[in-house]
Amino acid sequence: MSCKLKIGILGSGKGSNFLAIQNAIEQGKLSAEVRVVLSDVENAGILDYARRKGLNAVFVPPGKFRTKLEPAAEQKCVEILREAGVELVVLAGFMRMLKSIFLDAFDGRVVNIHPSLLPAFAGLEAWKQALDYGVHYTGCTVHYVTREMDAGPIIAQAVVPVLPEDTPEKLHARIQAEEHLIYPQAIQWIAEGKLTMSGRRG
Amino acid sequence: MSCKLKIGILGSGKGSNFLAIQNAIEQGKLSAEVRVVLSDVENAGILDYARRKGLNAVFVPPGKFRTKLEPAAEQKCVEILREAGVELVVLAGFMRMLKSIFLDAFDGRVVNIHPSLLPAFAGLEAWKQALDYGVHYTGCTVHYVTREMDAGPIIAQAVVPVLPEDTPEKLHARIQAEEHLIYPQAIQWIAEGKLTMSGRRG
Repeated sequence: MSCKLKIGILGSGKGSNFLAIQNAIEQGKLSAEVRVVLSDVENAGILDYARRKGLNAVFVPPGKFRTKLEPAAEQKCVEILREAGVELVVLAGFMRMLKSIFLDAFDGRVVNIHPSLLPAFAGLEAWKQALDYGVHYTGCTVHYVTREMDAGPIIAQAVVPVLPEDTPEKLHARIQAEEHLIYPQAIQWIAEGKLTMSGRRG
Repeated sequence: MSCKLKIGILGSGKGSNFLAIQNAIEQGKLSAEVRVVLSDVENAGILDYARRKGLNAVFVPPGKFRTKLEPAAEQKCVEILREAGVELVVLAGFMRMLKSIFLDAFDGRVVNIHPSLLPAFAGLEAWKQALDYGVHYTGCTVHYVTREMDAGPIIAQAVVPVLPEDTPEKLHARIQAEEHLIYPQAIQWIAEGKLTMSGRRG
C-alpha cells in the first residue's frame, strides 16, 4: 500500500512505544508500516517484540562510546534504514545521541518522545527530575530531533498531573500511558502531511 | 479578626492579581487581610486600586537601579511591611529582584506568581517565550521566592493550552485568568497552614 508512511524504529529498551505504534497500525489508527527495528542493545526487548511481530529486527553494535554511536555504526544504521526505504525515523527509547552522519541523512525526518513537558527536564530520568523539582504538572513531548538534545520543534504534548503520593515509578507509568497515545497520533499527523512548521510553531 | 493572615502586596503594574486577591478576601474565599500595598512605580495602577479600596498604599522610590531596589529602598520596604504587621509578602507583578536585605527579613515568607509552568520559561514575557518555543501547554506557577529568580519551591500551578491562532496577548490573557484563580487559593493554603515542604515537594 503505497500510501503508508514507511517508518524505521530505533530503541534500546523494552520497546513499549514501539508496541503502541505497532498496535495503532494493526488497529488501522496509524497509516504507517514499520520497515525495520534497530537496536544498539543486542538483547533489548524491542528486538524480541519486533521479531515476534514478524518484522525485520537488527542489532547494530554501537562501538566504544557510551552516549553516542561510533561513526561507522551510525553509517551502518543509515544504510539499513535507506535499504528499507524508511521515510521517517522514530526513536523509541533510544539511549544514544544521534550525530551529523545520521541527522544529515534524515534531515527533518527523525522524531523522538521525551517524558516531560519540554523544555522543562531535558535529559535522563525526566520524571524523576520533575518529582524532585516539585512541579504539579509534567507530561510528555513528541518532537523533531535536532543536534541539540531534547530541543527540536514540538509536534505533540500531553499533560500529566503529579500526585502527592507519587513515586518515580508511579509517575513514570502514568507518563508512559500518555506517550502511548500521543506518539502514534503524532506520527499519523506526519503521515497525513498535516504538519507545517512556521519557525518552531506547528 | 486575629485568624486572618496579614499580607503585604508589592506590585509595579496594573495590579490584576492584587485585585483577584482582594476580591477573594471580600467574597470570604481567602482568610487574609491586605495590610499594605507597596509599589516602586509612583503612578502604578495597583496603588490607585489599593487607595480606591481604602487600603494603605505607598510608593517607595526604587533608586538608581533598573532590575533591583537600592539597599535603602529595600530596607524601607521591610520597615513598612513590619510596621504593618505583615506575615506574608505577596509579589503581584513586582518587576524587580529582591535581594538579601528583604529576603533575610522575610525568610520563607515571600511568594510570587509567574506566567509559565516553571521551570520552563523563567524571566520576562514568559508567555511570549512559550509561544516562540512552540509548546502546546504552558500555564502559571505560584512559588516561594528565593535568591535564584523564578526557582523557589512550587506552591500551585495551572495548565493553559496554547492554541494555534494564539497571539502573545491572547495567550497572556488566558494565563492571567488562571493566575487570578490559583493565587488566592495558594495564599489560602498558607493561611490555613496546609503547606508542608519536604525538600521541594509540597
